[in-house]
Amino acid sequence: MKIVECVPNFSEGRRSDVVEKILDAIRNVEGIKVLDSSSDASHNRTVVTFVGAPEGVKEAAFRAAEKAAELIDMEQHQGEHPRIGATDVLPLIPVSGVSMDECVELARQLGQEIGEKLAIPIYLYEEAAVCPERKNLAHVRKGEYEGLQEAISQPERHPDFGPARMHPTAGATAVGARPPLVAYNINLGTSDLTVAKAIAKTIRGSSGGYPSIKALGMLIKETNTAQVTINVCNYHQVSLARVFETVKSEAARYGVNVTGSEIVGLVPMDALLDVAAYYLRLEGFKPDQVLEVVVGR
Amino acid sequence: MKIVECVPNFSEGRRSDVVEKILDAIRNVEGIKVLDSSSDASHNRTVVTFVGAPEGVKEAAFRAAEKAAELIDMEQHQGEHPRIGATDVLPLIPVSGVSMDECVELARQLGQEIGEKLAIPIYLYEEAAVCPERKNLAHVRKGEYEGLQEAISQPERHPDFGPARMHPTAGATAVGARPPLVAYNINLGTSDLTVAKAIAKTIRGSSGGYPSIKALGMLIKETNTAQVTINVCNYHQVSLARVFETVKSEAARYGVNVTGSEIVGLVPMDALLDVAAYYLRLEGFKPDQVLEVVVGR
Repeated sequence: MKIVECVPNFSEGRRSDVVEKILDAIRNVEGIKVLDSSSDASHNRTVVTFVGAPEGVKEAAFRAAEKAAELIDMEQHQGEHPRIGATDVLPLIPVSGVSMDECVELARQLGQEIGEKLAIPIYLYEEAAVCPERKNLAHVRKGEYEGLQEAISQPERHPDFGPARMHPTAGATAVGARPPLVAYNINLGTSDLTVAKAIAKTIRGSSGGYPSIKALGMLIKETNTAQVTINVCNYHQVSLARVFETVKSEAARYGVNVTGSEIVGLVPMDALLDVAAYYLRLEGFKPDQVLEVVVGR
Repeated sequence: MKIVECVPNFSEGRRSDVVEKILDAIRNVEGIKVLDSSSDASHNRTVVTFVGAPEGVKEAAFRAAEKAAELIDMEQHQGEHPRIGATDVLPLIPVSGVSMDECVELARQLGQEIGEKLAIPIYLYEEAAVCPERKNLAHVRKGEYEGLQEAISQPERHPDFGPARMHPTAGATAVGARPPLVAYNINLGTSDLTVAKAIAKTIRGSSGGYPSIKALGMLIKETNTAQVTINVCNYHQVSLARVFETVKSEAARYGVNVTGSEIVGLVPMDALLDVAAYYLRLEGFKPDQVLEVVVGR
């Protein structure tokens, strides 16, 4: 079963009727499931998560961008979160039976379609980026909606698809592909926050750890225990097992045990099969030995 | 997605045209996938593995039993393996989204249908057994086809469904429910077969180990390494992780490392999620956090 996930961010987090209409545009595509939608009033932004087969996801993403362009006017938009358009970012994520290359191709097709049919300038970002500096979303969104209105005419800020001028209401959109992210917390047998912070610093990319790991030390008040709160941004690069083992050995340095861990929200099956394969030292194991994978095909 | 597996054994392993017709009866039921079929000439027996939704599996099992009754004559059957009928055993196995209780109920419905519509005496066995002694398949098959012809008239050998006399050609059938079995091998860093044999003895139920584990010590000639060859007959009772850890610690007693392990053939996703949850010490994890599970529903 080929599954792609899409996590579009829309520049509307206050008018629930508008959000509902965008969600309907997505839900009306056959085979598509909306897994989550969360709106933030101060960001004035809604993050939607939906999944389905590649073609269905492309279709749903297009219709959502079309609906957002119709209902959201960036000239009126205010909110704390950086943004360049009504549909601000549109990342496609390979979840099952789909390679990153396929997702990149799908993102480029989707970008072209939105650019040409809806006349919205499209910037390809992350894995789908054509120019290296656009891998970084922050670079694409530099100046935000307001700043990009002028900057878009400069050759180095020309979009990858669509016209080199902002859409009058919808602005511009960043379309990309990225690996699935797993929200993963590891609980420590201590109430000492400094231990959690020290471990987080060791493992995260921003301070010299694994480039695809983001981590913070937190204190969980209910249980008065320290926790390393982690985003595993590419579990193919650094598996949950490696994260767990690294935290365990760092904690041991402080005489602290790892008491448990938690996966927050959804996780691709692959990420957990990798863990089983790691610890059982599995030889020659393939995901298509999983009964559910064979049956679902 | 509800998935039930069925592994019927038919008393025909020589005439491939007969086997093919039985397979067709199964395949023709919508939504059913035949995963494997293997015939053994000396046993004169064929083991088929198929999967699908509960109702479809029941339908396919019934049609297979009907076809086997039509094409196999137990009066003519000879073979080394113990058997009581054309469709000798018909176990139903809960694989995904289905409880053992549901499988037991399905097996009883299937048994009643075959018993009443095809006039084949049905014995419910393993988890589906109504009388405790029939949990044991060996007890049900005591005397085999030939012996059961007389014994069936004794009240304690009366079938659970169908007439208390053998079907003139199809004999009798044992219909049951059991947990999925995982074929699992653990490789040792030694060529000393006695170590593998000693470990196998420690973990298997028949010599005082885990009741749901069967195990043997083997020497793999290609690599000249000793292997513990295991059937994990109920991974809910004893997970692959526990089997692996037990073998690892037993091996350490002999100064031997576990170099790796292999899953042979198919494995339910649950069995590997359990392994991930065990090693990551996952708290509050549920299989419906797996994206593929949510999407497949």
